[in-house]
This record gives sequence, structure tokens and C-alpha cells, in this order.
Amino acid sequence: MRARDLGIVIGTLPPGEHNAITDVPGVLVGHTTLISGDGPLVVGKGPIRTGVTVILPHDGDPGHEPLFAGSHTLNGNGEMTGLEWVRESGMLESPIALTNTYSVGVVRDALVTASVRRRPASGLWSLPVVAETWDGYLNDVDGQHVRPEHVFAALESAAAGPVEEGNVGGGTGMKCFAFKAGIGTASRRVPEADGGYTIGVLVQANHGRRERLAIDGVPVGREISQAEVPGPDVPAPDAGSIIAVVATDAPLLPHQCRRLAQRSSLGVARGGGGGEHSSGDIFLAFATGNRGLRPEEHEGAPRTFGLSMLNDDHLDSLYWATIEATEEAVVNAMVAAEAMTGRDGITFHAIPHDRLVEVMRRYGRLG
Amino acid sequence: MRARDLGIVIGTLPPGEHNAITDVPGVLVGHTTLISGDGPLVVGKGPIRTGVTVILPHDGDPGHEPLFAGSHTLNGNGEMTGLEWVRESGMLESPIALTNTYSVGVVRDALVTASVRRRPASGLWSLPVVAETWDGYLNDVDGQHVRPEHVFAALESAAAGPVEEGNVGGGTGMKCFAFKAGIGTASRRVPEADGGYTIGVLVQANHGRRERLAIDGVPVGREISQAEVPGPDVPAPDAGSIIAVVATDAPLLPHQCRRLAQRSSLGVARGGGGGEHSSGDIFLAFATGNRGLRPEEHEGAPRTFGLSMLNDDHLDSLYWATIEATEEAVVNAMVAAEAMTGRDGITFHAIPHDRLVEVMRRYGRLG
Amino acid sequence: MRARDLGIVIGTLPPGEHNAITDVPGVLVGHTTLISGDGPLVVGKGPIRTGVTVILPHDGDPGHEPLFAGSHTLNGNGEMTGLEWVRESGMLESPIALTNTYSVGVVRDALVTASVRRRPASGLWSLPVVAETWDGYLNDVDGQHVRPEHVFAALESAAAGPVEEGNVGGGTGMKCFAFKAGIGTASRRVPEADGGYTIGVLVQANHGRRERLAIDGVPVGREISQAEVPGPDVPAPDAGSIIAVVATDAPLLPHQCRRLAQRSSLGVARGGGGGEHSSGDIFLAFATGNRGLRPEEHEGAPRTFGLSMLNDDHLDSLYWATIEATEEAVVNAMVAAEAMTGRDGITFHAIPHDRLVEVMRRYGRLG
Amino acid sequence: MRARDLGIVIGTLPPGEHNAITDVPGVLVGHTTLISGDGPLVVGKGPIRTGVTVILPHDGDPGHEPLFAGSHTLNGNGEMTGLEWVRESGMLESPIALTNTYSVGVVRDALVTASVRRRPASGLWSLPVVAETWDGYLNDVDGQHVRPEHVFAALESAAAGPVEEGNVGGGTGMKCFAFKAGIGTASRRVPEADGGYTIGVLVQANHGRRERLAIDGVPVGREISQAEVPGPDVPAPDAGSIIAVVATDAPLLPHQCRRLAQRSSLGVARGGGGGEHSSGDIFLAFATGNRGLRPEEHEGAPRTFGLSMLNDDHLDSLYWATIEATEEAVVNAMVAAEAMTGRDGITFHAIPHDRLVEVMRRYGRLG
Repeated sequence: MRARDLGIVIGTLPPGEHNAITDVPGVLVGHTTLISGDGPLVVGKGPIRTGVTVILPHDGDPGHEPLFAGSHTLNGNGEMTGLEWVRESGMLESPIALTNTYSVGVVRDALVTASVRRRPASGLWSLPVVAETWDGYLNDVDGQHVRPEHVFAALESAAAGPVEEGNVGGGTGMKCFAFKAGIGTASRRVPEADGGYTIGVLVQANHGRRERLAIDGVPVGREISQAEVPGPDVPAPDAGSIIAVVATDAPLLPHQCRRLAQRSSLGVARGGGGGEHSSGDIFLAFATGNRGLRPEEHEGAPRTFGLSMLNDDHLDSLYWATIEATEEAVVNAMVAAEAMTGRDGITFHAIPHDRLVEVMRRYGRLG
Repeated sequence: MRARDLGIVIGTLPPGEHNAITDVPGVLVGHTTLISGDGPLVVGKGPIRTGVTVILPHDGDPGHEPLFAGSHTLNGNGEMTGLEWVRESGMLESPIALTNTYSVGVVRDALVTASVRRRPASGLWSLPVVAETWDGYLNDVDGQHVRPEHVFAALESAAAGPVEEGNVGGGTGMKCFAFKAGIGTASRRVPEADGGYTIGVLVQANHGRRERLAIDGVPVGREISQAEVPGPDVPAPDAGSIIAVVATDAPLLPHQCRRLAQRSSLGVARGGGGGEHSSGDIFLAFATGNRGLRPEEHEGAPRTFGLSMLNDDHLDSLYWATIEATEEAVVNAMVAAEAMTGRDGITFHAIPHDRLVEVMRRYGRLG
Repeated sequence: MRARDLGIVIGTLPPGEHNAITDVPGVLVGHTTLISGDGPLVVGKGPIRTGVTVILPHDGDPGHEPLFAGSHTLNGNGEMTGLEWVRESGMLESPIALTNTYSVGVVRDALVTASVRRRPASGLWSLPVVAETWDGYLNDVDGQHVRPEHVFAALESAAAGPVEEGNVGGGTGMKCFAFKAGIGTASRRVPEADGGYTIGVLVQANHGRRERLAIDGVPVGREISQAEVPGPDVPAPDAGSIIAVVATDAPLLPHQCRRLAQRSSLGVARGGGGGEHSSGDIFLAFATGNRGLRPEEHEGAPRTFGLSMLNDDHLDSLYWATIEATEEAVVNAMVAAEAMTGRDGITFHAIPHDRLVEVMRRYGRLG
Repeated sequence: MRARDLGIVIGTLPPGEHNAITDVPGVLVGHTTLISGDGPLVVGKGPIRTGVTVILPHDGDPGHEPLFAGSHTLNGNGEMTGLEWVRESGMLESPIALTNTYSVGVVRDALVTASVRRRPASGLWSLPVVAETWDGYLNDVDGQHVRPEHVFAALESAAAGPVEEGNVGGGTGMKCFAFKAGIGTASRRVPEADGGYTIGVLVQANHGRRERLAIDGVPVGREISQAEVPGPDVPAPDAGSIIAVVATDAPLLPHQCRRLAQRSSLGVARGGGGGEHSSGDIFLAFATGNRGLRPEEHEGAPRTFGLSMLNDDHLDSLYWATIEATEEAVVNAMVAAEAMTGRDGITFHAIPHDRLVEVMRRYGRLG
């Protein structure tokens, strides 16, 4: 179940075929979901409500064939490894993985392992990109249950086409505006006049305060308050985190990717996110429109090579597509997620679809 | 006439006494408005629709008594001088001036002149903060009509209390979402539990595309389209710029100010701004909660001095206050502005108050 | 007289034909030097020891034909206008001008005027790049003596070939390590294996403390102390500023330019600069290896266009060339400058060539 | 054996008692050194030449009692986790660990584990700071041999006083200018007039090309070339990485720490480092002069708290101390390291002390 299944449409640009980040040709997504145990928290035992999501930026080896990329941090109370190199080189050279806060390291080193296996004696090194949000309300996060094999499984399962959303992969134990949430995705096609490119966004959404939730401008969080659908009794002012990954097939240079990444923060804002102090809101954008950025380092390798660059006059459409897709991806993360009970019996409820539709209609949406 | 006079209230935090940046004690605002001539553009003659707005960050000399400050750039297609020093030192040492794009230099040097007059042999130097948006649709911007005396007059007229909005000062010739706009301001008080501080925002609003205009989440720009209230026949995809200045009496350190400044971009986003490619969206935040940051450089000056810092746990209220105040300041800039005809007979119309009220009501606002 | 005329050679890479920034094909340099009056300072009268230096990045109009560029700030106690746009767009769209601290505005607006004259109804705007250092020890800097016509004259005089150094243009009243200094330049050719590109650097050098001066690693400032060649009796711990402009004909992308710019800080460090608190050390790098970055905005303009990019594996040579050329440009600024007496009879002495040669020889240089 | 034991003294400021980062009161350093196996590389088996170094920023729990901190990246071909939060909050909340490139993750998660053990139900989270350089010439880096227990052992062994240098901890398998290197440290005391503060620097030095090595300005790398003391037959243009951690007891704010961190790049430059493309040159500075930055989050916790700030006029001494200490720490890393043979029989030689002394003397140093 997704926002559009309820009649909720964010913005005006058309989505791609699957309304997913995988609409950008070559982008693959895989999840490993870890759910086991119930009852009281026993650190190291469980209950376990966590996982790993991986995004492969293209169908080759990004270590050998990097893509241009850039990032933006709205609020840095979080981690995304590998960013120093993305900023310096303007390139993304690894899959992107999303997991919980305390398993970033194991996932990062497992991506190294996978890279080493692919190219054992290459002389290249690997500085993988791994980001996180905190699932400790439901999950035994202190127990650090993610293992390298979970990462390998996510890599192996990565596929094109529709993307599972909600309580899957890195999003398994996440919540958003005090509703259950997790992974969400959306895409947009920009007009042919601006190149007809696709923008795809995938979020791991764990942010927001109920009273601030806005969907297409409607104050849903005030209408469906915690008096009606309680969030659990967790520290009130907490406001989680959101990671967004933006993909496009446009031929953007690194600084253009960086600019695109900042637009995700505007999509988050439209949905009611405030970049709260306790939030790790970090956004990465990459562009598949140029390949072959690292000619092999053999004798006779070219000193320069050709690129394509999108004329800046057409960037605005991509900006707006990023804003719309980010906003809708967050809604999808909530709409797709089902209620989940985790450690110590703590429950995050799903946003009630019928009530959501009713509210949206009352505020003049949904016809 | 302001948003609240129409019943439009953005958010939930209460405004300060004047709902203006001047609600932060010590902050003064002055305008010089330059309107003369009509008819065809003759570069160097007119018509003239421009001016200067100055913000004095406190009632003393910021050159001797700097304040902590920080900035954020959403889209840097604009100028704000002095930012290298703000970033390096974390301090604001000059008044802030807003004007048109081609008069930044004269205003900057005039602030130097004013500073030199105040402290002739001080050995201190001055790197003033001057920002701009482009008023060339109405104004003979190429004619560079702002003179040093206009800056001095704005400084001398700077006052506390209510702030004139709309077609005044640096905002004289500006437009927003293809409606006439200009200067707008708003303020918020955070709860006593978070310190009871005031956040004041002043914008020079010249940004946005009609179809994207949202007010309190309502798609006003789609409802009051250019078919109904035309913007002039100017290059369609243009999207202007917005400068926001955020003031607070909270004792924030420089990095906290920088974080506050980024929240202005979220307020802009909620109103329909996209940080467009052609937009210079630059935000500066300063905090008056610490003074005496530059002990005089005489023999015996203290090597260290005491400061106060807001516990980060209370920052969120200030963030949200910045978001709300920025969003409302933009609406105020539009609501206050009156239609203006400038060079070559080009007219920007005011947003029609009655229609605005009608639309807001239809979408479930205004009771 | 230049460093190499004394036998001082920094590093190992060969310089270009003129050992100047103008060795990068298309780069032009012009100076307007203002020297008049003697005796006591009368603000607004003089004495005047200042000027303007302009660098034209290529032989066309950079407003129509921008170049990729990037910047780095070692210590931001200074001004370089236009940087927000350079950072955002990755492009340089104006000539670069260097002047004194209090004349940045007039020079900036004069560059706007010049741009408007070149393309009166273009719909493009201009955010010129103007940087400064402080010449108030010798010059009536408070008097703000630079006028628009001085900027126009510098633009008109801009030429290829050898570049005047020392007490000229923006460097007229500057000093370095308490010796008279000003404008300096140098260039390097990288090996053919790395593309045979040229790196040219021009500095306006006004930084450094005598005791820290190092030339090719030799502690010259300790050997030729202020006991031997006094700096004037000015506030002791002052440490001025340095602006460096780096040009190359390599096809660098914006982020590669930014990386190049930071290498200037390493060249400054090798010469004894510390990026002192009172110093405005701002570096801009641009690359002429790609032109045509802004296809005209007419119907049918291409949405994308082709670029060339230097393979990162060859960047190191350009880095090292930037370090060497920056270090040598600073020495050239000192060696070329002659003693100057300014306001209130204050004198900055030239570095004594014979003593310099003697010291260098004693420390094992100069054969 | 250290630089000063050979008579080599960098700069003029006096070192602290141990000429080590531990001269900053409260700072502790611990190493776990892993050396085993010989002969051909078998990934997963060895030979092993690696380890972990930890720096505890004070004698308490930085998770409960953060310190102000800031960072600078000279060249980001490397990893330092936790920087997003350091930049956002201005605070360091974890020990700092240094290891090899492919073990960053395990070390990072082990620091999380250690943090969780210290405060099991705190509701605080942990975003540890872990940095790396690449030891794959000597070490089976692909084998990822560092284990959590190695991290715990380093934490437990952390102590004040003299710091082991050279082939220890994270520096075990590192080289510098094609000589064996590893961990190095140095410290400086600034004059009493500037507060008498201590600056301590610890580097994991793995950077530099032989021909560029300069020690106190002397071109040592040209004098002791690879013809005389070969580096192994590894890809010639490689230039490794350097991590520097700067500690001070001065009461610096976050932005002042960031400024301090950049000065490490100037120290690296003076020693012949060029921030090469393949280098991960990332610098972190923290200040112990303010504690208690996170009042407990209980009812009645203060909304604001008092701080001390160093008057910027005294920063220059700390800058210069950082430059000197960084430069000397690199020399110490080389002087202390002994020749090491690793995988596949590859050997990095130590810099020959007698030759070094002879060269320094010939160039007018060492009396």
C-alpha cells in the first residue's frame, strides 16, 4: 500500500514506472530484514527489529566505475561514512548501505570485504558509504545484531523494479512522526524540455514529531494526534533521523549533485521535518549520466576524458522533482509500514489509512 | 496590512510584541526607499524603484562589540559580502544591509565609511555584511542609483518597534511568486521551558514561482494563478532570490547560529520556494545573548572571558520558531506590498487580499 | 628584479615563458597604481599608496563564457566577493580584481558597470569577484581613494606577457614579513606525462611575521631580523593577508579547482605564513580547459554539452605546481618591491638583495 | 629515539614535559600492536602488521562530558567517522581511534560497544570518531585482522605520560616519504602572555613522497634519496595519508577548534606534504578548556551554562604551536620507527639517523 493507492499525490510531476529509485536505469535495491524475539530487552539477545538496505548505483562495480555524487547535511546528528571522499573527489565508489546506528561499522567493513572479493589485487581501496538511523525503541540496538552475511545477502538480493517499503531492511524498526515507518521511495520524470530525466529517491525515515506532520500541506499530525493514535511512551521531544538517497540519470557534475542533495531537505521540510537537533538528516545524490570516470590506470590511459554536463538552465526541474519525490517517499514509508511491537512491548502504530484519507479529503485534497 | 490582519497565522508559537525582528531587544531597522520616474528605461536615469534596508544588530557599535553569528546558503546565486569573516570568526561586526544586486558595492563601502567615522583611529577594520536581490524588472538596476547618503539615511532612521514592510528599502522593487513583495518580518517567542527567547526574522523576498506558492500548506499559487492575477510578461522560469536575517536574544554560539540559519531554508521550502538555480538564497543568523566578545586590545585585557551557551536540548524550539517566522515573514512581504509599476510600464500586482482569504477558508483554514 | 634573478629557485618544476600567471594562454593582467602625496595622514586627502589589479581569466567575456572555478579560505579575515556563486555554480563569470580593504565595494560595482556596458540588455546579472588586503600603514585607506575609472583603466591596460610586480596595482601599499611587498607571480609547467599543463599564480602579498619568513626552507626572517632591517613601528603582532589567484589551462572540474585552491595554502605555509588570525588568506583557482559552459539561452539551446576532465591520477603534478608557484610568487612580490614611505612618514623597507643572496648561500642554496 | 635526541628541533616554542599529546592534562593514549606472520600474503591469514591507537580526550566519559572540537580536511581520500556530528554540534563525544583503512568499521562498532557498556540505559547514542591510513604494503589489510578485543585492550592500556611512537598501534604498518613511520607526537607550550596553554599533536603518518621530504626546511628527501635508501618497489606515485589529532587545554569554541585543525595542514606542508590526491589528510582538534557541556537531561537541568572563551587575539600562538607540533610529530614518527618487513617480503627502511644528522648539519642546522 502506497500513498497513491490512497489517492494521495504529492506535486505535479509524473512518477516513473515503479515510482521508485529503481526507475533510474541500473539502480538496484536489496533488503535484509531481521525480526526475531519478543518481550523484555536483553542486550545481545533481542528482541531484534533491524536490518540492512543496500542501493547499488549501477549494474557494474562502482569501485571501478564511480559515479559523480554530492551530499548535504541538514542536521548532522548521525553518520554517513565515506563522505570525506565523496566531497573531495566528487565520486561515489561503493554501494550505499542503510542500517541502524550501532551497526554502521560492521556493514561498512562488510562492504569492504565484498569489494576486496570482487577485485582482489586491484591496488584500489574502498571507502564505503553507510548511513544509519536509530531503531532502539523497538530493536535491541545495543546488541549490534547485524552481521556481515546480512550485508552480503542484501547485496545478492538487490534488484530492479518495485521496491519493498515500510518495515524492511534498514527501515525495519523505524518510526516517523510517531507512526511506524521505515523505507520509502518515489520517483519523478522531468519534462522532455528539460531532458526527460528521472529522479529517484529512497529514504530511511525515522524522523519527525507528530504535531508537525504535514502531507501535501495538510496538517495531518494535528488531526490525527497522539491522543487518537498514540505513539509509545518514549521520551517526548525525540525526533529521530532521515537518510535520503537521490539518484538520477541526468549527466550532473559533482557540484550539481551536491545542490540536488540539499533539495531533499526542502522535501523533508514540506512534510513537517525540522531538522531537529537530535536528528541525523544526511542526503546523498548521485548521477548515472556519466560513466567511465576512472580510466584504468594502465600505461596509455587517457589523461583526459569526455563528459556530458546538464546545462544549469534545466536544473530547476530536477530540483523540484527531488523535492516532490522526497516528500512522497516519506509518506510512502509511513503508508506502507504496519504496526510493530518490539522490545519491552513497545508498539509503534501504523498511520490509519481510512482516517488519513478522511482528513485529506476534508482539507480539499483527493477531489 | 499583514498576514495576521487577514486571519492567516503560520504555526503555533506566539509572536513577539510587534511580530517583527525588532522584538529582539536592541535590534533596529531602517529603510531608505527610492522611487522616482516612470516610463521607458533609460539606464542611468530611471525609472528608479529601489532602496536600502539596514539592520543594526544591537544598540552599540558592532565593530567594537561583535555578536556571534552564522550563515547558510540554500542557493548561492547572489551576494552577501562579509561572509568569509562571519564563517571564520563566528562573529558579526557590522550592520547588515540589503539592497539591489548592482548596488552592493556602494552600500558596502558606505558602511565602511560610517564605521571609520565612528572610530577614526581604531586600528580595527571593517568587513561589512551586505546582501542583495535583483529588482531589474521594475528598477533601472543597471543605473546603480543607490548612493552612500542613502545608506547613511537608513542607518540614521533605524529604530525599534514596528517595521515597515512591502515596497520599502531594499525591498522596494521586489516581487515574490509573481506578486509584488519586498520586505517582510515576523517573530516568535519560544516557550518559557526553553528559555522564553525571541526569534525575529526579516526577509527581502524576491523569489518563487506562482504555481508553487503555498501559504500554511494551502496551494494558493495554483488557486490564484497568473491567468487570474498576471505577473508581467517577464522570462517565465525566473525565480528570484530571498535573503533572510534571523535574530535572537538566546545565547547561541556561532555553530548554533549557523544551524539556526539553515532552518530559514526550511521555512522558505514550506512556502513553496525551491532554492531555484537562479535564486540567491542566503541566510544569516545572529545572537545577542552574548556581548563583550572583543575585550579591548589594551594592556591587561583578559585572555579569556565568560560566555553563556544555550543547552542544545532547547535548540529545537528555536529551530521551529525560525521556520515559522521565516514562512510568515514571506507572507507578510506579499500581503503588505502594493502593486507597483516600474520601468517600461511593467507592473507587479499585489496578492488580492479578498481572494487570498477566500482560498484559505476553502482549504479549511481561518476557522 | 625577481627571485630567479638572484639565483633563488623554488622547487623543481620548470616555469612557463614569463614565469607569470599570464603563461596560461588567454589570461591578462592589468594594474592601476595610485601614488600621491606625502606627510601626515589626512583622511580623504592622502597620502595615497594604493591601486587596483585585474585578472581577466580569458580573452572573451567571462559573463558570457564562464570558466570552472573553486576557492579555499585559509583564514577568512578578509573579503572576496562573488564566492557564494563560485561555490554554488562552480563557475567564474567575471574578471577578478584586487584592491585595498576599503575599496572593495567601488571596484565591485565598477566591474558591474563594465559588465553592463558590454552586454546592455542581456538579462544576465553579474556577481563580480573582488578581493582585498589592507594597506593602511602606508595608504590613507580610510579615504577610499579608488574610483571606478581606476578599475576601467586597469581593465583596459590588461595584457598578456610579463607582469609588473611589487609596488603596483592592488599591491602598491602592501608589505610582507615586514618587508615591502605587493604583487608577485610565478608559473610552472607540469610534465608532459601529466598533460604538460601550465599553472600560473598571482598573489597580492601582505602577510607574515618577519621571524617566520622562510625562503626555500631557509630561515631568512631570523637571519635578516627587524634589528637589521626594521619594519616600521606598527602594532607588533599584526600579520596581514594574502590573496592568491591560481590559473590553469588544464580541463579541471569545479571540485578539482577547489582542491587546487587549497594547495595555495600549502605554498604559503612553506614560506612561513601561518594563516594568522588577523589575516585574510583566500585563494581562487580557475581552469580555462573547458569553455562554452553556458550555451546561449535561446530556443534550441542544447540541454547538455560536452566537457573534458583531467583524470584525477594526474592531479598531483598540478597540486605541486600550485604549491611551488605560490611560494615563488610571494618571494617575487618581496624581491620586486622597492622601499616605500607612506602616510605619517612610515616606511617599509625592501628585502636587501645582497643579504638575501648571502643568507641563501650560507644555508647551502645557490650552489 | 626522537627528533630532539638527534638535535633536531622544529621551531622555537618549548615543548611540554613529554613533548607529547599527553602533555595536555587528562589526555590518554593507548596502543594495541598486531605483528605476526611472515612471507607471502595470504588474505585472511597474514602477514599482519597493523593495530589500533586510541586517544581518550579526558579522564571522564566523553559521551557524558563532551568537549568542543572541530576538523579540517586537506585531502579527503580517507575516512574519519563521526565528523558529521562534530561539525554539527561542535562536540567530540567519544574516544578517537586510529587504525587501518579496512578495519574502521570494527573499531567504530567496538567503541559503540564500549560506550554501551559504560552507560547501558542512558538514552544517549554514540557516533564514534575513527580514522585510518592504509598499511597494505606491509599488512594483510584485506584480511581485516583487527578485532573488538584489540580496541578494548587499547582503551584499557590508555595512559598519560610518554607515548610510544613509530611501529605501534594504528601506525604499525605505516610509512612516510618512503621511510618506515607510524605514530608520532609532539607538544608546545604557548607563552604565558597568551595563556601558557599546551598544544599536543599526535599523527598517524603514512604520507609523502621521498623527494619532497623537508625537515626544518632542509631538503632531506633529495639528499637521502631512494637511490641511497630505497623505498620498496611499490607503485611510485603513491603518497599515502596522514591523520592528525590536536589537543589543547585552552578554552576554545568549536569554530576556534576548526581553525586550529586547519593549521595542521600547514605543518604537514612545511614537512613536504602536498595533500596528494591519493592521500587522506584529515585533522581533528579538541579543547579541554571547557567541560560540563552537556548538563544532565533531568528536570531542572539548566537551560544555559557558563563557558570560557579564549580571546581571539591570543589564537596566533596556538596556531603556530599547532604548526610546529605537527611538523615535529611527523619527524618523530619517522625517527622512532624501525625498519619493518611485511607481506611478500616488502621492507620499509628507517630513516638513517646518522645520515639525517649529517645532512641537517650540512644545511646549517644542529649548530
